[in-house]
Amino acid sequence: MKQATPSTFNGADTLLGALVDAGVEVCFANPGTSEMQMVTAMDHVEGMHPVLVLFEGVATGAADGYGRMTDKPAATMLHLGPGLSNGMANLHNARRAHTPMVNLVGDHATTHLELDAPLTSDIVAQANTVCDWVTVNGSANTLATDGINAVVAAYQGAGQVATLVVPANHAWDVIEAPLANKPFDPPVQARVGRDKISQAAASLRQGDKQVALLLGGRGLRDRALDAAGRISRATGARVLSETFPARWRRGAGIFSPQPVPYFAELAQGMLRDLDTIILLGAKAPVAFFAYPGLPGVLTAPGTELQLLATVDEDVEEALVALALELDAAKPGESQARISPPPPQEELCPAGVGAVIAEFMPENSIVSEEAATSSLGFYPMTAGAAAHDVLSLTGGSIGQGLPVAIGAAIACPDRKVISLLGDGCAMYTIQSLWTLVRENLDVTVVVYKNNSYAILNIELMRTGAGEGGDKARSLMSLDNPELDWIAMARSMGVSARRVVTVEDFRSAFSEAMTQRGPRLIEVCLAEIDWIAALKKMAGPDL
Amino acid sequence: MKQATPSTFNGADTLLGALVDAGVEVCFANPGTSEMQMVTAMDHVEGMHPVLVLFEGVATGAADGYGRMTDKPAATMLHLGPGLSNGMANLHNARRAHTPMVNLVGDHATTHLELDAPLTSDIVAQANTVCDWVTVNGSANTLATDGINAVVAAYQGAGQVATLVVPANHAWDVIEAPLANKPFDPPVQARVGRDKISQAAASLRQGDKQVALLLGGRGLRDRALDAAGRISRATGARVLSETFPARWRRGAGIFSPQPVPYFAELAQGMLRDLDTIILLGAKAPVAFFAYPGLPGVLTAPGTELQLLATVDEDVEEALVALALELDAAKPGESQARISPPPPQEELCPAGVGAVIAEFMPENSIVSEEAATSSLGFYPMTAGAAAHDVLSLTGGSIGQGLPVAIGAAIACPDRKVISLLGDGCAMYTIQSLWTLVRENLDVTVVVYKNNSYAILNIELMRTGAGEGGDKARSLMSLDNPELDWIAMARSMGVSARRVVTVEDFRSAFSEAMTQRGPRLIEVCLAEIDWIAALKKMAGPDL
Repeated sequence: MKQATPSTFNGADTLLGALVDAGVEVCFANPGTSEMQMVTAMDHVEGMHPVLVLFEGVATGAADGYGRMTDKPAATMLHLGPGLSNGMANLHNARRAHTPMVNLVGDHATTHLELDAPLTSDIVAQANTVCDWVTVNGSANTLATDGINAVVAAYQGAGQVATLVVPANHAWDVIEAPLANKPFDPPVQARVGRDKISQAAASLRQGDKQVALLLGGRGLRDRALDAAGRISRATGARVLSETFPARWRRGAGIFSPQPVPYFAELAQGMLRDLDTIILLGAKAPVAFFAYPGLPGVLTAPGTELQLLATVDEDVEEALVALALELDAAKPGESQARISPPPPQEELCPAGVGAVIAEFMPENSIVSEEAATSSLGFYPMTAGAAAHDVLSLTGGSIGQGLPVAIGAAIACPDRKVISLLGDGCAMYTIQSLWTLVRENLDVTVVVYKNNSYAILNIELMRTGAGEGGDKARSLMSLDNPELDWIAMARSMGVSARRVVTVEDFRSAFSEAMTQRGPRLIEVCLAEIDWIAALKKMAGPDL
Repeated sequence: MKQATPSTFNGADTLLGALVDAGVEVCFANPGTSEMQMVTAMDHVEGMHPVLVLFEGVATGAADGYGRMTDKPAATMLHLGPGLSNGMANLHNARRAHTPMVNLVGDHATTHLELDAPLTSDIVAQANTVCDWVTVNGSANTLATDGINAVVAAYQGAGQVATLVVPANHAWDVIEAPLANKPFDPPVQARVGRDKISQAAASLRQGDKQVALLLGGRGLRDRALDAAGRISRATGARVLSETFPARWRRGAGIFSPQPVPYFAELAQGMLRDLDTIILLGAKAPVAFFAYPGLPGVLTAPGTELQLLATVDEDVEEALVALALELDAAKPGESQARISPPPPQEELCPAGVGAVIAEFMPENSIVSEEAATSSLGFYPMTAGAAAHDVLSLTGGSIGQGLPVAIGAAIACPDRKVISLLGDGCAMYTIQSLWTLVRENLDVTVVVYKNNSYAILNIELMRTGAGEGGDKARSLMSLDNPELDWIAMARSMGVSARRVVTVEDFRSAFSEAMTQRGPRLIEVCLAEIDWIAALKKMAGPDL
């Protein structure tokens, strides 16, 4: 490992050095007393970029965004069990995204644990609920090895959440000999067997059956989508995509699968006529929530599910092999560049989406967590310049802003656009500060409707009744109204409020031509969400 | 139960009704789709006050503050495992505070769990890491009973954190018959046996021994402190208090124990000459963190620890009985009303404390989480008008603002003062919104030093070295500086920035004579924390 300050090394130094050697370059951190040696180790080794966040949910969400864009782990540094707790919701999302990540959780010195000091908790039990790999380090001399094992664990399959608990005394103990700098070869994904490829090809050759590919995980990257497009053209198969992809390449020039809708009623309609669904990195579609009288499984009873590749297998390679097996040489239908006009004069989500489609530069990254409002984004931006969308994979809001941080650090030359509902944005609002601290090229768009609007729809769908004043008070953000300009300013982000489509066009187009963090508060026109949704969905909802 | 809307009752209605019948009057909530029936139940039963919060850490911290001030549980309503995760750090603090609390965690319908939809997680495993009692409801017909059992569990000992997992289908299923409205008698704390009282009295009568009472839990309430003062006067025993009390009655007219200092070096000095420590609601003092070369146990090897009452036993009654056994009839030395002048011209924590001591009205509640800065608050306010202090019991920052919310809702006629470091305040900054939504009489004082200042001290104490640029970047909040006036305005709180002692005197005295939420940004003078601390502590640090 590269040693910035030649001196005696302690466990923390050797751990950080080992992570750098294994390719970990960024650490999203909010440290405390039990992590002090890991903090000073940042200057003892070369090559680690520490990023301070003001709440741990920002750290874990940022590591998620970084991992989604690079397919390699960032580290987080969390302060004992409570620090881990604060990061847990976004670890849940990251695990659902299959993102590689290494969490370093400081703990009390091993000798101190039995004293049950106030910050003591069962970190392993907590970590086990949201992580794929959890190890408690046993001594300073094994910290480097444990660090590398954590990185190896993070690379398993499509990606895993790995957590290493670092007792304070192991971090401060002097090590016997620093670990030799060995080349690190990240593990690769398992390949799908030939027999499965042949079986899928056979299903696709049955001309009298309705067959669909359902893509998820890395099946939504460029190469995979290209292969899927060719397969579709050669066989007539439909190509669908999972509802909340971790990373989805879309836009002009790219083959465009049809996402399975969030609303179970609509998804059932889409899926009901299929004879076979071939799963490639996606799970069989199920309803996001249960609703009285609606089934949770969204496929029709007669539909055969054929698992070609799990999310942890090499989905891209499987699609390429399948296309080859089918002689699917001709490119599929690629999405045309379309920039639809805003559909109405009022500032509505579709209008916002139309303006985004017009101005979003090639290769942008969109971190999307606008809940209700995203229903306007997707149709409008289908033909925008090619971009990646990172969506809310685990359903736990507060992921959008942190993921934008991580994506911007991973890809400093790409524009990042963070689309947020007002309710979502408040969950990890501390993120705005880190955008400025790191001078990240992120444009934050807050859809302000003063409401957890999705819940008004869910109230109807769950059959919970009309809801009286108290119920409504639990879904409304209008007393007091949030002032997003002041919020942005409080953390040093320049901001603009827009109330018309023209305002938004001006603000967004300007943001796209400049660099650095900024926020646009979009004051949405009041609309009847349920009516709008029913109109969009048709009789299925 | 009182039924606001006569109709068919479902599980959620009967659960909320049972909680109201058992005396639960407030529910701090951030619901989602799986809690919709609990949301509409708010209007179906009478007597529950739902309080919307914009992040679950605010809900659990607010329930903690409410429970500390009322000795009875508030409810929280949390959205599946991720909602619980977001509230976990403050559940950790609440459990360390022995606060009664009932968490209602919505989950997927039981039929939906096996589908592993995106929000699915092991809620029980998560809850078990921070709760004393966890139950998964089995059917709509037992939801009322489970609710009452949760309340009974919350009342065990000094107070417990109870969590009931509510499957969505049990909430929406129609119940067979509503639970009859039975009178609810909360469980009472166990009394300490006579033999233990006699044994403690015998220890205290040994005139040649240095004996101290160490008070914690409810041993820091009025009646307990009065008894402790009398015992001290009659026997010469010293009276100490735990470092981070859940609720501490202090100020003019009240007997004042000597808190065990946070810094282990100072605590050891205080405790080293004691022959016997009698524990009353407090645990044996241990260091908050481990430090290289410092012992974790703070008492001297020869000191005998005598457990008179655990925190879960009736500590107040034990102290009264002990005073009686000792014929300690004469009142102890009560704290004089002192309002010391600010010790220097610059705006420093001691100066802030001096102004608070001068203007804080009788019976205020102080939620204190100012980390480094609180070192100036305590000495200056020892002789302020009588007040209650609620401190950070579990070491997980982000508790101060939510606790202030809960205390203000519990005690609407008392002034609540929330003292926060800038780093702490950012953790659950969403709290400001709920202060306005509920129009709570809370004055928030943010000590702005643009730093996690305590960590600069801990860097020295842990022997982690000087720290280079990267290390310093992980402890500094100065790029960008937080603008607390804008932050307050973003959530509708009126705010003032002060840079001198006179400014603060003007702002704070005004805040004390008016009602409603407000924030004062205290721009602290730059001081050398380590030098200041060493000066205060003397040669022990």
